[in-house]
Amino acid sequence: MIQPSILPGFMELLPEEQAEFDALRASIEAVFRTYGFWSLDTPAIEKNEVLFAKGGGETTKQIYRIEKGEHSTEQSLRFDLTVPLARYVAQHAGELAFPFHRYQIAKVYRGERAQKGRYREFYQCDIDIVGREVLGISNDAEILRVIDQALTSLQLDGHVFHLNHRRLLNGYLRHLKVDDVASVLQILDKKEKIGAQKTAVLWSELGLSEVQIQSLLEFIEPTASMEEKKIRLQKYAESMTDMQAKEEYSQGLTELMMVLDELQLYGVPSERVTIDLAITRGLDYYTGIVFETFLMAAPNLGSICSGGRYEDLASNFSKEKFPGVGMSIGLTRLYSYLREREKEKEPYIEAIVLPMTEEEKGYAIRVAEQLRAAGLRTLLYLEAGKFKKKMTYANRVQARFALIVGEEEMKNNMVSVKNLLDGEQETLALESWLSRR
Amino acid sequence: MIQPSILPGFMELLPEEQAEFDALRASIEAVFRTYGFWSLDTPAIEKNEVLFAKGGGETTKQIYRIEKGEHSTEQSLRFDLTVPLARYVAQHAGELAFPFHRYQIAKVYRGERAQKGRYREFYQCDIDIVGREVLGISNDAEILRVIDQALTSLQLDGHVFHLNHRRLLNGYLRHLKVDDVASVLQILDKKEKIGAQKTAVLWSELGLSEVQIQSLLEFIEPTASMEEKKIRLQKYAESMTDMQAKEEYSQGLTELMMVLDELQLYGVPSERVTIDLAITRGLDYYTGIVFETFLMAAPNLGSICSGGRYEDLASNFSKEKFPGVGMSIGLTRLYSYLREREKEKEPYIEAIVLPMTEEEKGYAIRVAEQLRAAGLRTLLYLEAGKFKKKMTYANRVQARFALIVGEEEMKNNMVSVKNLLDGEQETLALESWLSRR
Repeated sequence: MIQPSILPGFMELLPEEQAEFDALRASIEAVFRTYGFWSLDTPAIEKNEVLFAKGGGETTKQIYRIEKGEHSTEQSLRFDLTVPLARYVAQHAGELAFPFHRYQIAKVYRGERAQKGRYREFYQCDIDIVGREVLGISNDAEILRVIDQALTSLQLDGHVFHLNHRRLLNGYLRHLKVDDVASVLQILDKKEKIGAQKTAVLWSELGLSEVQIQSLLEFIEPTASMEEKKIRLQKYAESMTDMQAKEEYSQGLTELMMVLDELQLYGVPSERVTIDLAITRGLDYYTGIVFETFLMAAPNLGSICSGGRYEDLASNFSKEKFPGVGMSIGLTRLYSYLREREKEKEPYIEAIVLPMTEEEKGYAIRVAEQLRAAGLRTLLYLEAGKFKKKMTYANRVQARFALIVGEEEMKNNMVSVKNLLDGEQETLALESWLSRR
Repeated sequence: MIQPSILPGFMELLPEEQAEFDALRASIEAVFRTYGFWSLDTPAIEKNEVLFAKGGGETTKQIYRIEKGEHSTEQSLRFDLTVPLARYVAQHAGELAFPFHRYQIAKVYRGERAQKGRYREFYQCDIDIVGREVLGISNDAEILRVIDQALTSLQLDGHVFHLNHRRLLNGYLRHLKVDDVASVLQILDKKEKIGAQKTAVLWSELGLSEVQIQSLLEFIEPTASMEEKKIRLQKYAESMTDMQAKEEYSQGLTELMMVLDELQLYGVPSERVTIDLAITRGLDYYTGIVFETFLMAAPNLGSICSGGRYEDLASNFSKEKFPGVGMSIGLTRLYSYLREREKEKEPYIEAIVLPMTEEEKGYAIRVAEQLRAAGLRTLLYLEAGKFKKKMTYANRVQARFALIVGEEEMKNNMVSVKNLLDGEQETLALESWLSRR
């Protein structure tokens, strides 16, 4: 006898939980599709040369390698959905229409040290618009709008997009005559975690002067209103004397303003968007707009959805340039949050049909089939046993309604409908009950 | 530069194909859910001790093993969805309501030699009802009904269930005083492929007498009508003198008849069901009803969906008995067939909005958002460029309708709708067009 168990760091849900997860996923997916995004389903296993085209780095340690015969290609499970997208776009460029709108919701694998809330197999939920050579800035706004709609569909009681543009930071750092931009940003990326004071210390250790540090901290300091921010951002531009810095900064500012304007055209409420100059994200990848998304009801959850604009998706696989904009929802983490919310849950089983005895089987089948034809998720309980056992089962699967059919009901072509939430029961024709819903 | 490619034996679809595959899958899944089946999503990686609890056999050679650090549990990718189900049921028995209705549509991995139509990563689409200690025969009929509805939803122009019962064969073989039942059935399992003559030769080599072979071939010979079959099956029972053989055979016959009767109660047309005594299926696993499913339009495709009743799902993981009935649709193969059918295909992109110039961007966004709110999958094309380029894109993504908005349209609050199938174009208010659909 083998002990039935799964590997540590893997998530597996009970049926009721899985139904919730599925509903979450379906809700998001429906929005992606409404915006005309195509779904992709790339293999979970890829060649190592593809997965590590960028060089690997940290990820190589976490990779799930596949053991195969000596002569076969080295292969591993994917650790994200971006590398497969890059490979796909480069491989099938001739067969795709650009801009290419795609989403992929799939599991990825990372052999991280097991700890609470960290999984080794988890869902990524990615959406990207990829252009060939060029891609208009309108797409950045569209991506944000899609997410805005997706999150709205989940009834999360409000979310806020924190937007930044990499060129704003880069331009300002150039203006401050900071050399080691990458290291400065790497430290900034951790500011949320380590605090402003520690950030300043690390910058100082890096060789930044007191003036540089103070200017930077001031620059990224959040201010009250969007209008204030816009004015301040404009003032910075005017104060710059280094032409290169000014140009870079201004380009970033212009694009950011375009995206903000376009979000208004989409009708995204202004309270759902803010500028946050402290956001950096994936240093070597993003080149334009970057953003993170926070829930108003759970700011401490961290960003549930992040992304941005990149200049060249598939530089490792193609000489062509594929600029794009995309983002990723942390689906597993979002689910963990939603699971713990106290909210009335929609029952998965909408109806269960319980014949009193074997005699009513045929009638019960007809009733169940009618419910199913009407689109209700309906279980039919045909096991032998006492009625009490049947009701226990109905409650166990958390059905919304139990439709009880006994001799009387069958004779009169009726059903006894019991509301399992409040216990109310009534006997009526099935059609009457269905028409009332 | 790395050549972008995937591993041999893996399937990857272009966006339009993927949309078709998704529609196929969604159609089947919707039926499963309507019948109150819960979805499961078990980890793709399981412990080797779980995967090989049965001993392994053939599958161990095809397994995708995961390479991990020395001290970690040996683990591999799943090769089917049945072992994970068995493990899940045994592990979570205390938290499940029995009968437990579950479906799982997910990828499985087998390192088979690459050949046309054989994939190393492919979808299995499994549905099972699992009981605890007992499970009524009604469930066998329900499983068939669910598949009947699922296949009907795919508009496959008709399918036929070929039903058998393992006890019919077993009882008859006992009646014939055949000893090595397993070997006889193993050969019978290949009859479809090798023909009756070769089957007879192999049986003869196994030591069966001429009489035994002739009786067996006669027994499994298909006859014209269902009525004829029933009469013949009844006659066999009457002719049996070995009491044990007769009992086993009769039990099988009774259950088979019960399932046939119940399918009638469900309204499954009789031409979609036939008795086929040559069907054996998974010798060491199935113990009752077994079946395969053939398409009337493509009998040579082979069975697209097979399954049956088993006595004990999780004997390797639990002392408790979990009898069940289930089946599996060969989704990847079914898709391959559907892909090649000449059928009018539903376009994935239902509408694309094309503003003539940058001036109409805001108006175009409003139009697109209205279409999306109305539930139409809608792309919005906001790239710069000539109108011809925009129309080329619209045709490239195979959109159903292009909604063109220029200066005039915007001024009059109208849209020009071009039907991209027949080229017809008209200018009207968006609401009018939407209300007409």
